[in-house]
Amino acid sequence: MCCLHCAFYKFSKNMKRIRVDEIALLKRPEQPSVLDKVQDLIEDFRKGSDAALKKYSVLYDKYDQDTVTVTDEEIRTAIASVDESLKRDISFAIENIKKFQGHAIHCREDSLTIQPGVICGYRYVPIERVGIYVPAGTAPLFSSLYMAIVPAVLAGVKEIVVSVPPRPDGTLDPVILYVVSLFKDLADIQVIKVGGAQAVAAMAFGTSEIPKVYKIVGPGGPFITTAKQLLSNLEVDIDLVGGPSEVVIIADSSANPACVAADLLAQAEHGSTSQTVLLATNEELIGEVQTEIENQLKTLPRAEYAFKSIENSYAIFVNTIEAMRISNEYAPEHLIINTANALELSYEVVNAGSVFIGEQSPEVVGDYGSGTNHILPTSGWAKTQSGVSPLTFLKKITFQNITKKGLEGLLPLANLARAEGLEAHARAIEIRVRAEK
Amino acid sequence: MCCLHCAFYKFSKNMKRIRVDEIALLKRPEQPSVLDKVQDLIEDFRKGSDAALKKYSVLYDKYDQDTVTVTDEEIRTAIASVDESLKRDISFAIENIKKFQGHAIHCREDSLTIQPGVICGYRYVPIERVGIYVPAGTAPLFSSLYMAIVPAVLAGVKEIVVSVPPRPDGTLDPVILYVVSLFKDLADIQVIKVGGAQAVAAMAFGTSEIPKVYKIVGPGGPFITTAKQLLSNLEVDIDLVGGPSEVVIIADSSANPACVAADLLAQAEHGSTSQTVLLATNEELIGEVQTEIENQLKTLPRAEYAFKSIENSYAIFVNTIEAMRISNEYAPEHLIINTANALELSYEVVNAGSVFIGEQSPEVVGDYGSGTNHILPTSGWAKTQSGVSPLTFLKKITFQNITKKGLEGLLPLANLARAEGLEAHARAIEIRVRAEK
Repeated sequence: MCCLHCAFYKFSKNMKRIRVDEIALLKRPEQPSVLDKVQDLIEDFRKGSDAALKKYSVLYDKYDQDTVTVTDEEIRTAIASVDESLKRDISFAIENIKKFQGHAIHCREDSLTIQPGVICGYRYVPIERVGIYVPAGTAPLFSSLYMAIVPAVLAGVKEIVVSVPPRPDGTLDPVILYVVSLFKDLADIQVIKVGGAQAVAAMAFGTSEIPKVYKIVGPGGPFITTAKQLLSNLEVDIDLVGGPSEVVIIADSSANPACVAADLLAQAEHGSTSQTVLLATNEELIGEVQTEIENQLKTLPRAEYAFKSIENSYAIFVNTIEAMRISNEYAPEHLIINTANALELSYEVVNAGSVFIGEQSPEVVGDYGSGTNHILPTSGWAKTQSGVSPLTFLKKITFQNITKKGLEGLLPLANLARAEGLEAHARAIEIRVRAEK
Repeated sequence: MCCLHCAFYKFSKNMKRIRVDEIALLKRPEQPSVLDKVQDLIEDFRKGSDAALKKYSVLYDKYDQDTVTVTDEEIRTAIASVDESLKRDISFAIENIKKFQGHAIHCREDSLTIQPGVICGYRYVPIERVGIYVPAGTAPLFSSLYMAIVPAVLAGVKEIVVSVPPRPDGTLDPVILYVVSLFKDLADIQVIKVGGAQAVAAMAFGTSEIPKVYKIVGPGGPFITTAKQLLSNLEVDIDLVGGPSEVVIIADSSANPACVAADLLAQAEHGSTSQTVLLATNEELIGEVQTEIENQLKTLPRAEYAFKSIENSYAIFVNTIEAMRISNEYAPEHLIINTANALELSYEVVNAGSVFIGEQSPEVVGDYGSGTNHILPTSGWAKTQSGVSPLTFLKKITFQNITKKGLEGLLPLANLARAEGLEAHARAIEIRVRAEK
């Protein structure tokens, strides 16, 4: 539980100091359970994926055509329709991401002599076929596509299925297809017009049109996340649990309330299931941020919407030590440290997806292309999981290469096999050491 | 499907050439489904983990005592009872593993300037609390314990729950407790006398005696594996899918049939659900291996048992290209390349847990301590998953540290936010760039 000195506030029309249970806070806002629906859907796919895909495409995507695969012609048309300045900005972001993500693979292969004649090593090898799910907000989010596809091609993945929810008229957002076109020469990419849990299931089981993929990557709403959770490690591998977005902001008296409010609103416009927690070491700041929220909302297009989601948000007045303890227990997807000693404080971070150090590091630059990835673990999964990177698309295979002299040096291992009652194991070593050859 | 020139053989009392469906081969031997039982058990834990633990400890572990936690006194007694030469051999193995696994963490922290004033970086941070499941063969396998705990402490994990199936008298194997004692100063370790799916569920949900862990690591039989699969990404994170052990051996005319047979028998003694596939580029070798199997079985203590499991094994006469294609499609936990050009061939490996290059690299040295880990993905999961290493116990947190000038350079990202309809995102950048401060 939080220390006695903490004061909890809830942002709302008339902000008031409230009592809140820290445990409830850490649990995140209640989400509508889609478990039963997704379980039924998965059962249908298990019985026959072609029929299931047809059924759920019509039901959820309102899509009823013989094929779900995007043609080359559709991609060419889309490329022509995208504004040139948007293309330049997308390239700008992609270059940043390439630079950082490429740097993340230090060493594709390495080995070490453990004893004379005993060489152990590893090699990173790309996963052969992956699926990328592109979530849709008001429109499918092209930034999520490049956040997944850049590390995939850097890793060397050769076959990629990109799944995108179709628009009401059955077409796809041209910007998505434009981004796909940038990677067409680097991998064999199939774009499919499928959204929701049916997209996850179709890629996990495979259909006559969609190849079964080995790993599914990308964030999504409750249907996508639940499908990924239920199918993971049974039918397919997944990147991480990426549900509703969330941010923790730690701020002190040095923070500009306008910046804190802007970060809070950026989070809030994601949707009503998002959550923001402000941990302020200065109690006045909380009131100033509330005032700024009200001011900035006046000119924000989706103000009504954003304010609704702010009602899931808390401000807590705490000291720095408690702030870091709560943040680490919460394990936020995003952590903004807007304090005078931000860099120093950042070394206390134990659980977080991505950390934004100092007032000039707003979370949104991570969303679009400072270099890091925006596909990050949510809902506390940052306690064990990492954001998407080329490592998401590689597996590490170990190797051993041993000489006869080297194997002699490993004879004590035969004793260990015998101590575990595995005689044939012991003999597989000894038969070689004793052999003339 | 396999090429027409392949010939399939099944090792059995009278080895014969058979027709086999490659798809059936790749699917592994049929396993008894424990899905319903494990689902019921998990539901019981969801309702109340203390009562469920009691119920299933009595039912499956035949253990009925008030506490499951091993005392310091039990550990002290165990240490005294372990043979000194076994202690030396265990230390020998652990040193090798430390050497290689320590080498696997090249870089705990790194950063890169993406643009002037835009620094992106990452830090690897240990998972705070993990559970290690120690499977039991005839006795609990102490090698699986050191294979998990060495990379855990190297990563820096501070709280470890070690779950071990109790013996019929309610005690634990002293060698297990001895191995625990070697790491007592490096982490806070709680050893619990719980086996099977109830151990996995108890660590995933937590009980009044056992803390909830964030990640569960370790191989196991069908109950353990199914529990890990069902709970993964919903209640707890897991290392990998580690079910029945399996090996593919690629061998040519240079291979000593006695060594091939010894490797095959070492695999076979694991149990009847294990599988071995010999891919021989020389048809005579298959007959010679069969003869060697029969000879070596004569003096093998668990001969009856081993021969039974060999009936799940195949030998296939193929050319080298087909051998590598089948192996990669099979994605074996272990791959032994016993050919004249083994090192060269190893570069063609796309999917495998761990690879043993050349005749003097028997798979069993990887089991006990050449340096690599024996907790590896099975059943085809090597297509996406990697063996256990310190990386299993670390997450990678990304950071960004940006100056005001740096943020100005990122202004194109605001356009991308607007193009996705996220106005508040765009403003969180612009409000800072425009600010006087």
